[in-house]
Amino acid sequence: MVMSYQARRRVEFSDTDAAGMMHFTAFFRFMEAAEHELLRELGTSVICADEQGTISWPRVSASCDFKQAARFEDLLTITVQVARLGRSSVTYSCTFHCDDQLLASGQIVSVCCRLTPGQAPEPMDIPTQLVQKLEPYLLPDPDA
Amino acid sequence: MVMSYQARRRVEFSDTDAAGMMHFTAFFRFMEAAEHELLRELGTSVICADEQGTISWPRVSASCDFKQAARFEDLLTITVQVARLGRSSVTYSCTFHCDDQLLASGQIVSVCCRLTPGQAPEPMDIPTQLVQKLEPYLLPDPDA
Amino acid sequence: MVMSYQARRRVEFSDTDAAGMMHFTAFFRFMEAAEHELLRELGTSVICADEQGTISWPRVSASCDFKQAARFEDLLTITVQVARLGRSSVTYSCTFHCDDQLLASGQIVSVCCRLTPGQAPEPMDIPTQLVQKLEPYLLPDPDA
Amino acid sequence: MVMSYQARRRVEFSDTDAAGMMHFTAFFRFMEAAEHELLRELGTSVICADEQGTISWPRVSASCDFKQAARFEDLLTITVQVARLGRSSVTYSCTFHCDDQLLASGQIVSVCCRLTPGQAPEPMDIPTQLVQKLEPYLLPDPDA
Repeated sequence: MVMSYQARRRVEFSDTDAAGMMHFTAFFRFMEAAEHELLRELGTSVICADEQGTISWPRVSASCDFKQAARFEDLLTITVQVARLGRSSVTYSCTFHCDDQLLASGQIVSVCCRLTPGQAPEPMDIPTQLVQKLEPYLLPDPDA
Repeated sequence: MVMSYQARRRVEFSDTDAAGMMHFTAFFRFMEAAEHELLRELGTSVICADEQGTISWPRVSASCDFKQAARFEDLLTITVQVARLGRSSVTYSCTFHCDDQLLASGQIVSVCCRLTPGQAPEPMDIPTQLVQKLEPYLLPDPDA
Repeated sequence: MVMSYQARRRVEFSDTDAAGMMHFTAFFRFMEAAEHELLRELGTSVICADEQGTISWPRVSASCDFKQAARFEDLLTITVQVARLGRSSVTYSCTFHCDDQLLASGQIVSVCCRLTPGQAPEPMDIPTQLVQKLEPYLLPDPDA
Repeated sequence: MVMSYQARRRVEFSDTDAAGMMHFTAFFRFMEAAEHELLRELGTSVICADEQGTISWPRVSASCDFKQAARFEDLLTITVQVARLGRSSVTYSCTFHCDDQLLASGQIVSVCCRLTPGQAPEPMDIPTQLVQKLEPYLLPDPDA
Protein backbone atom coordinates (compact mmCIF):
# COMPACT_ATOMS: atom_id res chain seq x y z
CA MET A 1 0.00 0.00 0.00
CA VAL A 2 1.65 3.22 -1.18
CA MET A 3 1.28 6.19 1.14
CA SER A 4 0.22 9.60 -0.10
CA TYR A 5 0.30 13.08 1.39
CA GLN A 6 -2.77 15.21 0.97
CA ALA A 7 -2.69 18.98 1.10
CA ARG A 8 -5.89 21.00 1.02
CA ARG A 9 -6.24 24.59 -0.05
CA ARG A 10 -8.90 26.95 -1.22
CA VAL A 11 -8.52 28.84 -4.50
CA GLU A 12 -8.01 32.51 -3.62
CA PHE A 13 -9.05 35.52 -5.65
CA SER A 14 -5.44 36.34 -6.48
CA ASP A 15 -5.09 32.81 -7.96
CA THR A 16 -7.76 33.52 -10.59
CA ASP A 17 -7.53 35.19 -14.00
CA ALA A 18 -9.79 37.09 -16.38
CA ALA A 19 -11.07 33.81 -17.84
CA GLY A 20 -12.72 33.29 -14.45
CA MET A 21 -10.54 30.26 -13.66
CA MET A 22 -7.52 29.59 -11.50
CA HIS A 23 -4.47 30.67 -13.51
CA PHE A 24 -2.48 27.64 -14.70
CA THR A 25 0.69 28.76 -12.90
CA ALA A 26 -1.14 28.36 -9.58
CA PHE A 27 -1.17 24.59 -10.14
CA PHE A 28 2.63 24.71 -10.13
CA ARG A 29 2.76 26.88 -7.01
CA PHE A 30 0.40 24.51 -5.24
CA MET A 31 2.42 21.44 -6.29
CA GLU A 32 5.53 23.01 -4.83
CA ALA A 33 3.74 24.00 -1.63
CA ALA A 34 2.43 20.43 -1.25
CA GLU A 35 5.95 19.03 -1.80
CA HIS A 36 7.22 21.36 0.94
CA GLU A 37 4.36 20.35 3.26
CA LEU A 38 5.29 16.71 2.75
CA LEU A 39 8.93 17.47 3.62
CA ARG A 40 7.82 19.21 6.83
CA GLU A 41 5.59 16.21 7.62
CA LEU A 42 8.72 14.05 7.27
CA GLY A 43 10.58 16.27 9.72
CA THR A 44 12.74 18.21 7.30
CA SER A 45 12.46 21.29 5.08
CA VAL A 46 13.15 22.14 1.48
CA ILE A 47 15.95 24.36 2.79
CA CYS A 48 17.93 22.92 5.65
CA ALA A 49 21.44 22.83 7.00
CA ASP A 50 23.83 20.05 7.96
CA GLU A 51 27.36 20.36 9.40
CA GLN A 52 28.74 21.26 5.98
CA GLY A 53 26.31 24.00 4.99
CA THR A 54 22.98 24.47 3.24
CA ILE A 55 21.03 21.77 1.39
CA SER A 56 18.19 22.64 -0.92
CA TRP A 57 16.16 21.13 -3.77
CA PRO A 58 16.20 23.14 -7.00
CA ARG A 59 13.69 21.79 -9.49
CA VAL A 60 15.01 20.58 -12.86
CA SER A 61 11.63 20.08 -14.50
CA ALA A 62 7.94 20.57 -13.92
CA SER A 63 4.92 19.60 -15.97
CA CYS A 64 1.17 19.58 -15.56
CA ASP A 65 -1.87 18.39 -17.54
CA PHE A 66 -5.01 20.42 -17.01
CA LYS A 67 -8.31 18.53 -17.36
CA GLN A 68 -10.82 20.88 -15.78
CA ALA A 69 -10.80 24.41 -14.49
CA ALA A 70 -10.48 25.21 -10.81
CA ARG A 71 -12.50 28.25 -9.77
CA PHE A 72 -12.53 30.89 -7.02
CA GLU A 73 -13.26 29.38 -3.59
CA ASP A 74 -12.98 25.78 -4.83
CA LEU A 75 -11.46 23.63 -2.10
CA LEU A 76 -8.71 21.59 -3.74
CA THR A 77 -7.15 18.36 -2.55
CA ILE A 78 -3.59 17.95 -3.75
CA THR A 79 -2.31 14.39 -3.43
CA VAL A 80 1.46 13.90 -3.51
CA GLN A 81 3.33 10.65 -4.09
CA VAL A 82 6.81 9.81 -5.35
CA ALA A 83 7.01 8.56 -8.93
CA ARG A 84 10.78 8.03 -8.89
CA LEU A 85 13.44 8.12 -6.21
CA GLY A 86 16.91 8.54 -7.70
CA ARG A 87 20.29 8.92 -6.03
CA SER A 88 19.99 12.67 -5.88
CA SER A 89 16.55 13.41 -7.38
CA VAL A 90 12.93 12.94 -6.39
CA THR A 91 10.09 12.95 -8.92
CA TYR A 92 6.92 14.02 -7.14
CA SER A 93 3.63 13.08 -8.72
CA CYS A 94 0.63 15.27 -7.85
CA THR A 95 -3.08 15.16 -8.58
CA PHE A 96 -5.63 17.91 -8.00
CA HIS A 97 -9.19 17.05 -7.10
CA CYS A 98 -12.24 19.13 -6.24
CA ASP A 99 -15.29 17.23 -4.97
CA ASP A 100 -13.80 13.95 -6.27
CA GLN A 101 -13.34 15.35 -9.76
CA LEU A 102 -9.81 15.20 -11.18
CA LEU A 103 -8.79 18.71 -12.27
CA ALA A 104 -5.11 18.24 -13.09
CA SER A 105 -2.10 16.01 -12.61
CA GLY A 106 1.53 16.96 -12.71
CA GLN A 107 5.11 16.17 -11.79
CA ILE A 108 8.02 18.05 -10.30
CA VAL A 109 11.59 16.74 -10.39
CA SER A 110 13.67 18.17 -7.54
CA VAL A 111 17.39 17.56 -7.07
CA CYS A 112 19.07 17.44 -3.70
CA CYS A 113 21.90 20.00 -3.87
CA ARG A 114 24.47 21.53 -1.65
CA LEU A 115 24.28 25.32 -1.99
CA THR A 116 27.42 27.42 -1.78
CA PRO A 117 26.98 31.20 -2.25
CA GLY A 118 28.22 32.35 -5.66
CA GLN A 119 28.44 28.81 -7.06
CA ALA A 120 26.04 26.67 -9.05
CA PRO A 121 24.08 24.20 -6.88
CA GLU A 122 26.02 20.91 -6.51
CA PRO A 123 23.92 17.69 -6.68
CA MET A 124 24.49 15.34 -3.76
CA ASP A 125 23.11 11.98 -2.61
CA ILE A 126 19.81 12.30 -0.81
CA PRO A 127 20.48 11.74 2.93
CA THR A 128 19.74 8.05 3.76
CA GLN A 129 17.29 8.98 6.50
CA LEU A 130 15.19 10.99 4.07
CA VAL A 131 15.31 8.22 1.44
CA GLN A 132 13.82 5.88 4.05
CA LYS A 133 11.09 8.37 4.85
CA LEU A 134 10.22 8.92 1.17
CA GLU A 135 10.13 5.20 0.22
CA PRO A 136 6.63 4.55 1.61
CA TYR A 137 5.35 7.21 -0.86
CA LEU A 138 7.05 5.57 -3.86
CA LEU A 139 4.69 4.39 -6.59
CA PRO A 140 5.50 1.07 -8.35
CA ASP A 141 7.62 1.53 -11.47
CA PRO A 142 5.15 1.42 -14.40
CA ASP A 143 7.89 -0.06 -16.63
CA ALA A 144 8.82 -2.87 -14.24
CA MET B 1 13.61 28.75 -42.65
CA VAL B 2 11.33 28.60 -39.61
CA MET B 3 10.35 31.94 -38.11
CA SER B 4 10.56 32.61 -34.38
CA TYR B 5 9.16 35.29 -32.13
CA GLN B 6 11.48 36.76 -29.54
CA ALA B 7 10.27 38.40 -26.36
CA ARG B 8 12.65 40.11 -24.01
CA ARG B 9 12.10 40.80 -20.34
CA ARG B 10 14.09 41.56 -17.28
CA VAL B 11 13.80 39.43 -14.14
CA GLU B 12 12.06 41.56 -11.52
CA PHE B 13 12.50 41.38 -7.78
CA SER B 14 9.03 39.92 -7.32
CA ASP B 15 10.03 37.09 -9.71
CA THR B 16 12.79 35.92 -7.36
CA ASP B 17 12.69 33.62 -4.33
CA ALA B 18 14.67 33.04 -1.16
CA ALA B 19 17.11 30.79 -3.02
CA GLY B 20 18.22 33.99 -4.80
CA MET B 21 16.94 32.76 -8.18
CA MET B 22 13.91 33.43 -10.34
CA HIS B 23 11.11 31.23 -9.00
CA PHE B 24 10.36 28.37 -11.40
CA THR B 25 6.72 29.42 -11.87
CA ALA B 26 7.96 32.66 -13.48
CA PHE B 27 9.22 30.62 -16.45
CA PHE B 28 5.63 29.52 -17.03
CA ARG B 29 4.28 33.08 -16.69
CA PHE B 30 6.89 34.31 -19.15
CA MET B 31 6.10 31.54 -21.66
CA GLU B 32 2.45 32.51 -21.55
CA ALA B 33 3.23 36.21 -21.91
CA ALA B 34 5.45 35.44 -24.91
CA GLU B 35 2.69 33.33 -26.50
CA HIS B 36 0.30 36.27 -26.05
CA GLU B 37 2.84 38.70 -27.51
CA LEU B 38 3.15 36.47 -30.56
CA LEU B 39 -0.65 36.43 -30.98
CA ARG B 40 -0.71 40.25 -30.81
CA GLU B 41 2.12 40.35 -33.35
CA LEU B 42 -0.10 38.21 -35.62
CA GLY B 43 -2.95 40.69 -35.24
CA THR B 44 -5.11 38.76 -32.79
CA SER B 45 -5.37 38.21 -29.04
CA VAL B 46 -5.61 35.26 -26.70
CA ILE B 47 -9.14 36.47 -25.93
CA CYS B 48 -11.11 37.72 -28.90
CA ALA B 49 -14.60 37.80 -30.23
CA ASP B 50 -16.21 36.78 -33.52
CA GLU B 51 -19.87 37.07 -34.56
CA GLN B 52 -20.78 34.08 -32.42
CA GLY B 53 -19.13 35.08 -29.15
CA THR B 54 -15.84 34.76 -27.33
CA ILE B 55 -12.87 32.65 -28.41
CA SER B 56 -10.02 31.90 -26.04
CA TRP B 57 -7.15 29.42 -25.59
CA PRO B 58 -7.20 27.47 -22.34
CA ARG B 59 -3.98 25.54 -21.85
CA VAL B 60 -4.24 21.76 -21.51
CA SER B 61 -0.65 21.15 -20.56
CA ALA B 62 2.58 22.96 -19.74
CA SER B 63 6.07 21.70 -19.06
CA CYS B 64 9.52 23.18 -18.58
CA ASP B 65 13.06 21.89 -18.08
CA PHE B 66 15.31 24.14 -16.02
CA LYS B 67 19.04 24.04 -16.87
CA GLN B 68 20.40 27.12 -15.16
CA ALA B 69 19.09 29.70 -12.75
CA ALA B 70 17.87 33.10 -13.89
CA ARG B 71 18.65 35.86 -11.41
CA PHE B 72 17.39 39.33 -10.46
CA GLU B 73 17.89 41.88 -13.28
CA ASP B 74 18.93 39.23 -15.82
CA LEU B 75 17.68 40.21 -19.26
CA LEU B 76 16.01 37.13 -20.72
CA THR B 77 15.30 36.34 -24.34
CA ILE B 78 12.29 34.08 -24.77
CA THR B 79 12.11 32.49 -28.21
CA VAL B 80 8.74 31.09 -29.29
CA GLN B 81 8.07 28.68 -32.13
CA VAL B 82 5.28 26.21 -32.88
CA ALA B 83 6.13 22.55 -32.28
CA ARG B 84 2.75 21.24 -33.43
CA LEU B 85 -0.27 22.78 -35.14
CA GLY B 86 -3.38 20.61 -34.68
CA ARG B 87 -6.96 21.20 -35.77
CA SER B 88 -7.81 22.98 -32.54
CA SER B 89 -4.55 23.01 -30.58
CA VAL B 90 -1.20 24.77 -30.81
CA THR B 91 1.92 23.45 -29.06
CA TYR B 92 4.25 26.38 -28.42
CA SER B 93 7.90 25.62 -27.88
CA CYS B 94 9.91 28.18 -25.87
CA THR B 95 13.54 28.62 -24.94
CA PHE B 96 14.98 31.03 -22.39
CA HIS B 97 18.42 32.52 -22.92
CA CYS B 98 20.52 35.03 -20.99
CA ASP B 99 23.71 36.23 -22.68
CA ASP B 100 23.51 33.31 -25.14
CA GLN B 101 23.31 30.73 -22.35
CA LEU B 102 20.32 28.42 -22.44
CA LEU B 103 18.50 28.62 -19.09
CA ALA B 104 15.35 26.63 -19.76
CA SER B 105 13.10 25.22 -22.45
CA GLY B 106 9.42 24.43 -22.26
CA GLN B 107 6.15 23.82 -24.02
CA ILE B 108 2.58 25.01 -23.65
CA VAL B 109 -0.34 23.31 -25.39
CA SER B 110 -3.24 25.72 -25.90
CA VAL B 111 -6.63 24.76 -27.31
CA CYS B 112 -8.80 27.10 -29.35
CA CYS B 113 -12.16 27.15 -27.56
CA ARG B 114 -15.47 28.90 -27.76
CA LEU B 115 -16.34 30.24 -24.32
CA THR B 116 -19.96 30.34 -23.18
CA PRO B 117 -20.58 31.64 -19.64
CA GLY B 118 -21.46 28.82 -17.22
CA GLN B 119 -20.34 26.09 -19.63
CA ALA B 120 -17.09 24.21 -20.10
CA PRO B 121 -14.93 25.64 -22.93
CA GLU B 122 -15.83 24.00 -26.27
CA PRO B 123 -12.87 23.17 -28.57
CA MET B 124 -13.24 24.54 -32.10
CA ASP B 125 -11.15 24.55 -35.28
CA ILE B 126 -8.47 27.23 -35.27
CA PRO B 127 -9.63 30.01 -37.65
CA THR B 128 -8.00 29.41 -41.08
CA GLN B 129 -6.50 32.88 -41.17
CA LEU B 130 -4.66 32.26 -37.89
CA VAL B 131 -3.46 28.81 -39.04
CA GLN B 132 -1.85 30.53 -42.02
CA LYS B 133 -0.17 33.09 -39.77
CA LEU B 134 1.16 30.42 -37.39
CA GLU B 135 2.51 28.09 -40.11
CA PRO B 136 5.74 30.06 -40.69
CA TYR B 137 6.60 29.42 -37.01
CA LEU B 138 6.03 25.64 -37.29
CA LEU B 139 9.09 23.52 -36.57
CA PRO B 140 9.66 20.41 -38.72
CA ASP B 141 8.10 17.27 -37.23
CA PRO B 142 10.98 15.41 -35.48
CA ASP B 143 9.22 12.07 -36.20
CA ALA B 144 8.74 12.71 -39.92
CA MET C 1 -15.69 43.69 23.21
CA VAL C 2 -14.85 43.98 19.52
CA MET C 3 -14.71 40.70 17.63
CA SER C 4 -11.83 39.84 15.34
CA TYR C 5 -11.33 37.21 12.67
CA GLN C 6 -8.03 35.37 12.67
CA ALA C 7 -6.60 33.71 9.59
CA ARG C 8 -3.48 31.60 9.80
CA ARG C 9 -1.13 30.80 6.96
CA ARG C 10 2.40 29.65 6.45
CA VAL C 11 4.79 31.66 4.27
CA GLU C 12 5.43 29.60 1.14
CA PHE C 13 8.57 29.54 -0.95
CA SER C 14 6.84 31.35 -3.81
CA ASP C 15 5.99 34.18 -1.36
CA THR C 16 9.67 34.90 -0.73
CA ASP C 17 12.14 37.05 -2.66
CA ALA C 18 15.90 37.23 -3.19
CA ALA C 19 16.31 39.28 0.00
CA GLY C 20 15.32 36.08 1.81
CA MET C 21 12.07 37.62 3.09
CA MET C 22 8.42 37.41 2.18
CA HIS C 23 7.86 39.83 -0.70
CA PHE C 24 5.89 42.89 0.44
CA THR C 25 3.08 42.27 -2.05
CA ALA C 26 2.29 38.99 -0.24
CA PHE C 27 1.09 41.03 2.75
CA PHE C 28 -1.56 42.54 0.47
CA ARG C 29 -2.55 39.16 -0.96
CA PHE C 30 -2.86 37.77 2.55
CA MET C 31 -4.96 40.74 3.72
CA GLU C 32 -7.34 40.18 0.85
CA ALA C 33 -7.52 36.43 1.49
CA ALA C 34 -8.28 37.09 5.18
CA GLU C 35 -11.03 39.59 4.22
CA HIS C 36 -12.54 36.92 1.95
CA GLU C 37 -12.29 34.28 4.70
CA LEU C 38 -14.14 36.62 7.04
CA LEU C 39 -16.90 37.10 4.45
CA ARG C 40 -17.23 33.31 4.10
CA GLU C 41 -17.33 33.03 7.90
CA LEU C 42 -20.25 35.50 7.80
CA GLY C 43 -22.07 33.34 5.26
CA THR C 44 -21.39 35.37 2.13
CA SER C 45 -18.66 35.74 -0.48
CA VAL C 46 -16.73 38.60 -2.03
CA ILE C 47 -18.55 37.74 -5.25
CA CYS C 48 -22.19 36.84 -4.86
CA ALA C 49 -25.48 37.22 -6.65
CA ASP C 50 -28.88 38.57 -5.66
CA GLU C 51 -32.08 38.73 -7.77
CA GLN C 52 -30.70 41.69 -9.72
CA GLY C 53 -27.28 40.33 -10.66
CA THR C 54 -23.73 40.20 -9.33
CA ILE C 55 -22.41 42.04 -6.29
CA SER C 56 -18.69 42.38 -5.63
CA TRP C 57 -16.26 44.48 -3.63
CA PRO C 58 -13.59 46.27 -5.69
CA ARG C 59 -10.95 47.79 -3.48
CA VAL C 60 -10.43 51.57 -3.70
CA SER C 61 -7.32 51.72 -1.56
CA ALA C 62 -4.85 49.54 0.26
CA SER C 63 -1.93 50.36 2.51
CA CYS C 64 0.49 48.50 4.74
CA ASP C 65 3.28 49.35 7.18
CA PHE C 66 6.04 46.77 7.43
CA LYS C 67 7.81 46.49 10.81
CA GLN C 68 9.64 43.19 10.56
CA ALA C 69 10.34 40.66 7.87
CA ALA C 70 8.31 37.48 7.51
CA ARG C 71 10.38 34.52 6.36
CA PHE C 72 9.91 31.17 4.61
CA GLU C 73 7.83 28.74 6.69
CA ASP C 74 6.86 31.38 9.26
CA LEU C 75 3.35 30.71 10.49
CA LEU C 76 1.50 34.03 10.33
CA THR C 77 -1.61 35.08 12.20
CA ILE C 78 -3.61 37.69 10.32
CA THR C 79 -6.16 39.46 12.49
CA VAL C 80 -8.98 41.28 10.71
CA GLN C 81 -11.30 43.89 12.18
CA VAL C 82 -13.39 46.68 10.68
CA ALA C 83 -11.99 50.19 11.11
CA ARG C 84 -14.90 51.93 9.38
CA LEU C 85 -18.28 50.81 8.12
CA GLY C 86 -19.71 53.27 5.60
CA ARG C 87 -22.92 53.14 3.57
CA SER C 88 -21.21 51.31 0.72
CA SER C 89 -17.63 50.81 1.91
CA VAL C 90 -15.84 48.74 4.50
CA THR C 91 -12.37 49.59 5.79
CA TYR C 92 -10.71 46.41 6.99
CA SER C 93 -7.86 46.72 9.44
CA CYS C 94 -5.33 43.87 9.52
CA THR C 95 -2.33 42.98 11.65
CA PHE C 96 0.25 40.30 10.97
CA HIS C 97 1.91 38.47 13.84
CA CYS C 98 4.43 35.64 14.03
CA ASP C 99 5.08 34.17 17.50
CA ASP C 100 3.41 37.22 19.10
CA GLN C 101 5.68 39.65 17.25
CA LEU C 102 3.95 42.30 15.17
CA LEU C 103 5.28 42.12 11.60
CA ALA C 104 2.96 44.48 9.75
CA SER C 105 -0.36 46.27 9.87
CA GLY C 106 -2.50 47.44 6.99
CA GLN C 107 -5.87 48.50 5.69
CA ILE C 108 -8.01 47.71 2.70
CA VAL C 109 -11.03 49.80 1.69
CA SER C 110 -13.55 47.74 -0.29
CA VAL C 111 -16.70 49.16 -1.88
CA CYS C 112 -19.88 47.16 -2.32
CA CYS C 113 -20.72 47.39 -6.02
CA ARG C 114 -23.20 46.01 -8.46
CA LEU C 115 -21.30 44.61 -11.45
CA THR C 116 -22.78 44.86 -14.93
CA PRO C 117 -20.63 43.46 -17.77
CA GLY C 118 -19.10 46.23 -19.86
CA GLN C 119 -19.89 48.94 -17.32
CA ALA C 120 -17.94 50.46 -14.47
CA PRO C 121 -18.82 48.95 -11.07
CA GLU C 122 -21.75 50.83 -9.49
CA PRO C 123 -21.48 51.46 -5.70
CA MET C 124 -24.55 50.34 -3.75
CA ASP C 125 -25.61 50.25 -0.10
CA ILE C 126 -24.16 47.30 1.79
CA PRO C 127 -27.02 44.81 2.33
CA THR C 128 -28.51 45.37 5.83
CA GLN C 129 -27.97 41.78 6.84
CA LEU C 130 -24.25 42.03 6.13
CA VAL C 131 -23.96 45.37 7.95
CA GLN C 132 -25.38 43.64 11.03
CA LYS C 133 -22.87 40.81 10.70
CA LEU C 134 -19.91 43.19 10.30
CA GLU C 135 -20.86 45.51 13.20
CA PRO C 136 -19.43 43.20 15.93
CA TYR C 137 -16.01 43.56 14.21
CA LEU C 138 -16.17 47.38 14.16
CA LEU C 139 -13.42 49.13 16.12
CA PRO C 140 -14.34 52.25 18.10
CA ASP C 141 -13.87 55.45 16.12
CA PRO C 142 -10.48 56.88 17.24
CA ASP C 143 -11.77 60.41 16.56
CA ALA C 144 -14.96 60.00 18.57
CA MET D 1 10.98 71.58 -13.38
CA VAL D 2 10.81 68.27 -11.53
CA MET D 3 12.01 65.25 -13.46
CA SER D 4 10.00 62.04 -13.64
CA TYR D 5 10.80 58.52 -14.71
CA GLN D 6 8.27 56.75 -16.89
CA ALA D 7 7.99 52.99 -17.09
CA ARG D 8 5.64 51.35 -19.55
CA ARG D 9 4.20 47.88 -19.30
CA ARG D 10 1.34 45.89 -20.69
CA VAL D 11 -1.10 44.14 -18.37
CA GLU D 12 -0.52 40.41 -18.75
CA PHE D 13 -3.05 37.64 -18.37
CA SER D 14 -1.45 36.46 -15.14
CA ASP D 15 -1.96 39.99 -13.73
CA THR D 16 -5.74 39.74 -14.06
CA ASP D 17 -8.34 38.20 -11.76
CA ALA D 18 -11.81 36.70 -12.02
CA ALA D 19 -13.38 40.17 -11.85
CA GLY D 20 -11.84 40.71 -15.29
CA MET D 21 -9.49 43.42 -14.00
CA MET D 22 -5.84 43.65 -13.09
CA HIS D 23 -5.52 42.34 -9.53
CA PHE D 24 -4.80 45.20 -7.09
CA THR D 25 -1.52 43.64 -5.92
CA ALA D 26 -0.14 44.07 -9.46
CA PHE D 27 -0.15 47.85 -8.92
CA PHE D 28 2.28 47.31 -6.05
CA ARG D 29 4.48 44.98 -8.08
CA PHE D 30 4.55 47.51 -10.91
CA MET D 31 5.42 50.38 -8.55
CA GLU D 32 8.34 48.39 -7.21
CA ALA D 33 9.51 47.43 -10.70
CA ALA D 34 9.35 51.11 -11.75
CA GLU D 35 11.35 52.14 -8.66
CA HIS D 36 13.99 49.55 -9.60
CA GLU D 37 14.03 50.74 -13.23
CA LEU D 38 14.64 54.28 -12.01
CA LEU D 39 17.55 53.08 -9.86
CA ARG D 40 19.06 51.29 -12.88
CA GLU D 41 18.55 54.48 -14.92
CA LEU D 42 20.55 56.29 -12.22
CA GLY D 43 23.36 53.76 -12.52
CA THR D 44 22.70 51.72 -9.41
CA SER D 45 20.50 48.80 -8.33
CA VAL D 46 18.11 48.08 -5.49
CA ILE D 47 20.66 45.49 -4.35
CA CYS D 48 24.27 46.55 -4.63
CA ALA D 49 27.54 46.16 -2.86
CA ASP D 50 30.14 48.58 -1.54
CA GLU D 51 33.46 47.79 0.19
CA GLN D 52 31.63 46.94 3.42
CA GLY D 53 29.01 44.54 2.09
CA THR D 54 25.50 44.56 0.68
CA ILE D 55 23.16 47.56 0.56
CA SER D 56 19.48 47.14 -0.16
CA TRP D 57 16.18 49.00 0.25
CA PRO D 58 13.55 47.18 2.29
CA ARG D 59 10.20 48.93 2.08
CA VAL D 60 8.63 50.15 5.31
CA SER D 61 5.28 51.13 3.85
CA ALA D 62 3.29 51.03 0.66
CA SER D 63 -0.10 52.43 -0.25
CA CYS D 64 -2.20 52.85 -3.35
CA ASP D 65 -5.52 54.45 -4.29
CA PHE D 66 -7.37 52.75 -7.14
CA LYS D 67 -9.56 55.01 -9.31
CA GLN D 68 -10.26 52.88 -12.34
CA ALA D 69 -9.65 49.30 -13.36
CA ALA D 70 -6.73 48.29 -15.57
CA ARG D 71 -7.59 45.43 -17.92
CA PHE D 72 -5.82 42.69 -19.86
CA GLU D 73 -3.52 44.09 -22.57
CA ASP D 74 -3.88 47.69 -21.36
CA LEU D 75 -0.61 49.53 -21.90
CA LEU D 76 0.16 51.33 -18.64
CA THR D 77 2.42 54.30 -18.06
CA ILE D 78 3.86 54.37 -14.56
CA THR D 79 5.31 57.74 -13.62
CA VAL D 80 7.74 57.82 -10.70
CA GLN D 81 8.85 60.86 -8.74
CA VAL D 82 10.26 61.38 -5.25
CA ALA D 83 7.81 62.77 -2.70
CA ARG D 84 10.32 62.88 0.15
CA LEU D 85 14.05 62.36 0.42
CA GLY D 86 15.12 61.63 4.01
CA ARG D 87 18.53 60.77 5.46
CA SER D 88 17.99 57.08 4.93
CA SER D 89 14.57 56.82 3.29
CA VAL D 90 13.06 57.65 -0.07
CA THR D 91 9.31 58.07 -0.58
CA TYR D 92 8.49 57.27 -4.20
CA SER D 93 5.27 58.65 -5.62
CA CYS D 94 3.77 56.78 -8.57
CA THR D 95 0.83 57.33 -10.89
CA PHE D 96 -0.65 54.85 -13.34
CA HIS D 97 -2.18 56.06 -16.59
CA CYS D 98 -3.72 54.29 -19.56
CA ASP D 99 -4.54 56.46 -22.59
CA ASP D 100 -4.17 59.60 -20.43
CA GLN D 101 -6.68 58.34 -17.89
CA LEU D 102 -5.48 58.17 -14.30
CA LEU D 103 -6.03 54.64 -13.00
CA ALA D 104 -4.24 54.73 -9.66
CA SER D 105 -1.68 56.57 -7.58
CA GLY D 106 0.49 55.24 -4.80
CA GLN D 107 3.57 55.57 -2.66
CA ILE D 108 6.37 53.31 -1.51
CA VAL D 109 8.74 54.23 1.31
CA SER D 110 12.08 52.43 0.96
CA VAL D 111 14.89 52.60 3.50
CA CYS D 112 18.55 52.34 2.59
CA CYS D 113 19.93 49.50 4.70
CA ARG D 114 23.09 47.55 5.16
CA LEU D 115 22.29 43.85 5.02
CA THR D 116 24.21 41.41 7.18
CA PRO D 117 23.15 37.74 6.94
CA GLY D 118 21.25 36.63 10.04
CA GLN D 119 20.73 40.17 11.31
CA ALA D 120 17.92 42.68 10.89
CA PRO D 121 18.60 45.23 8.12
CA GLU D 122 20.48 48.26 9.52
CA PRO D 123 19.36 51.70 8.20
CA MET D 124 22.21 53.83 6.85
CA ASP D 125 22.57 57.25 5.21
CA ILE D 126 21.77 57.22 1.52
CA PRO D 127 25.10 57.50 -0.37
CA THR D 128 25.67 61.17 -1.28
CA GLN D 129 26.06 60.40 -4.96
CA LEU D 130 22.63 58.78 -5.08
CA VAL D 131 21.03 61.65 -3.14
CA GLN D 132 22.31 63.99 -5.85
CA LYS D 133 20.87 61.79 -8.57
CA LEU D 134 17.48 61.53 -6.86
CA GLU D 135 17.13 65.27 -6.11
CA PRO D 136 15.98 66.25 -9.64
CA TYR D 137 12.99 63.88 -9.13
CA LEU D 138 12.01 65.47 -5.80
CA LEU D 139 8.55 67.05 -5.75
CA PRO D 140 8.10 70.32 -3.83
CA ASP D 141 7.06 69.77 -0.21
CA PRO D 142 3.26 70.31 -0.15
CA ASP D 143 3.50 71.57 3.45
CA ALA D 144 6.23 74.11 2.73
